[in-house]
Amino acid sequence: MSFNDTFIRACLKQEIEHVPVWYMRQAGRYQAEYREIRKKHTLLEICRIPELCAEVTILPVQQLGVDAAILFSDIMVPLGPMGVKYDIIEKRGPILETPFRNADDIASLRNIEPEEDLSYVLETIQILARELKVPLIGFTGAPFTLASYMVEGGPSRNYIRTKQMMYGQPELWNRLMEKLGSMIVTYLKAQISAGAGAVQIFDSWAGALAPEDYKQYVYPTMKRIFQELKEVPVPKIYFGGVSSGELLPLWNDLDADVMGIDWRVSIREGRKRIGNNHAIQGNLDPTMLLAPWSKLESKAKEIIDQGLEAPGFVFNLGHGIFPEVPGDMLKRLTDYVHEYSHSVLNKQ
Amino acid sequence: MSFNDTFIRACLKQEIEHVPVWYMRQAGRYQAEYREIRKKHTLLEICRIPELCAEVTILPVQQLGVDAAILFSDIMVPLGPMGVKYDIIEKRGPILETPFRNADDIASLRNIEPEEDLSYVLETIQILARELKVPLIGFTGAPFTLASYMVEGGPSRNYIRTKQMMYGQPELWNRLMEKLGSMIVTYLKAQISAGAGAVQIFDSWAGALAPEDYKQYVYPTMKRIFQELKEVPVPKIYFGGVSSGELLPLWNDLDADVMGIDWRVSIREGRKRIGNNHAIQGNLDPTMLLAPWSKLESKAKEIIDQGLEAPGFVFNLGHGIFPEVPGDMLKRLTDYVHEYSHSVLNKQ
Repeated sequence: MSFNDTFIRACLKQEIEHVPVWYMRQAGRYQAEYREIRKKHTLLEICRIPELCAEVTILPVQQLGVDAAILFSDIMVPLGPMGVKYDIIEKRGPILETPFRNADDIASLRNIEPEEDLSYVLETIQILARELKVPLIGFTGAPFTLASYMVEGGPSRNYIRTKQMMYGQPELWNRLMEKLGSMIVTYLKAQISAGAGAVQIFDSWAGALAPEDYKQYVYPTMKRIFQELKEVPVPKIYFGGVSSGELLPLWNDLDADVMGIDWRVSIREGRKRIGNNHAIQGNLDPTMLLAPWSKLESKAKEIIDQGLEAPGFVFNLGHGIFPEVPGDMLKRLTDYVHEYSHSVLNKQ
Repeated sequence: MSFNDTFIRACLKQEIEHVPVWYMRQAGRYQAEYREIRKKHTLLEICRIPELCAEVTILPVQQLGVDAAILFSDIMVPLGPMGVKYDIIEKRGPILETPFRNADDIASLRNIEPEEDLSYVLETIQILARELKVPLIGFTGAPFTLASYMVEGGPSRNYIRTKQMMYGQPELWNRLMEKLGSMIVTYLKAQISAGAGAVQIFDSWAGALAPEDYKQYVYPTMKRIFQELKEVPVPKIYFGGVSSGELLPLWNDLDADVMGIDWRVSIREGRKRIGNNHAIQGNLDPTMLLAPWSKLESKAKEIIDQGLEAPGFVFNLGHGIFPEVPGDMLKRLTDYVHEYSHSVLNKQ
């Protein structure tokens, strides 16, 4: 089997024969095999055992026939070597031993040395780069999203303490953003050197911010990150998560290649807001995977039709897969995206 | 002291001397007095003791000097007499004994008879209508938001089962919407007859829906509710909650008087999306109440300035007050809204 680089070409707005597709959290609890592995290993253990982590990463590629793999990991992983003590608690998420709230806390954060600190991640990527016949997407959390866990001490509904630092101690906030920004650039460059064919930055909670707050407190760091990654020769994807629709106009001049959007904004409307410099990735509501096939099919068709209105489109969900999603629906959807988009592109 | 009807005039886009202000969850855990009462009574007990409930409702009006009171209650209250068995669990929210998921469940729901079933609510309103010197806002949850609790069995992050019913059993879903719609009209009419000077429908979770899903599965019921309330001579407010920004264009022809928006969309942008038929209410991010005063003041000023660009504006938050908010900040903000808007209006 030859290497399938459709995903990369779509990211770069080049010609394609079908719309490429992958799914956020395509390795996860909806898979029986994954649930079996999780009986013996915690999520973080899997991340730290390169052979096992590679196996978990490859499994959905084999099962679903998707056009890209995404490194199995967690956005908290690079925070460990920065000095953040955390654990990931089932059904709750990442919980910190001590939240980061004052100048000393922030000053204590050091930059990572991926070859030393996160060798298991790089080793996993090296295995995957050898074994996969599709591109591997490396990833990291974005500064706001990572900061929200660090300042709150865990998942949050309202991000009260995070915003309190942002509004009340902007210098401290900026130092935190700066440190996270540097870590992200270092980490992604190391992932790319190890063999990642693309990278995605997950800003899952940025949609909690009013656009002007995002602009003032987050945008400068995102701008810098993508600038510093500009010369790195792989596609960069930025994903904004739940209710990020109001932020899209601010993404226009970020040096990312692909912008991932959630289901509240259509692909057409997303392109209108972001402008045509970027490819678009998205945006099926994952709950649709529990709908009758006819409903799911017509929604997928609409997304693909809009996606093909301009060069540069990657089919994905607007949020990670839920454990409740049936794997056979995902397989059927993947086949449909390939076949339907192939037929449309062949007619053109 | 004479009756202050500024809030009603703003809702109806009439002339005002200052911008009226009230806060969602203005009676709540941020108040020491409320916390004391809650040591002796559960939330639902307070709702069921008219004298106590009226006291809790009046307290923030006295403390803050706001231009409207909002009935202390919970959106679950009218679901009890429909046949929903639930409890409200501290820090979790409403939890149902049995979720509503099949045709029999939905068929078992009966309409309420407020005079019989919810006499304690009407009695509370009667007390408040006598005692208050500002309008009392009655309220209810909206059909989608109520249905989400009923189908999920409690609070949800992803509304999987709710959307599953919507997509997979649209007839069942429509019957549920119809029953909730009828309850809402009956309940609000009874509240208004008892003395509520305005009513608000809270659709806190509607922002989880893509606009086209909202249009297909929720909008028809909202349209009908406001049509059936059209002749009732008090202002009707519709509030869409977190990330409802994408839904605003669909609200344009709803027969509500006021549209409440969250902080992700500015007042100016909200008016642009909804159109000029409605007054606007909102939309300070409540976390701003934990920011330094200068930050809060400049944001409040911006909201007021935009609010005064067209007739019909009510100052509020974009979400309920958090327990962490200091009461003196709310008082200072209330005074500022009154004084600053008064000075602007006097110059015009």
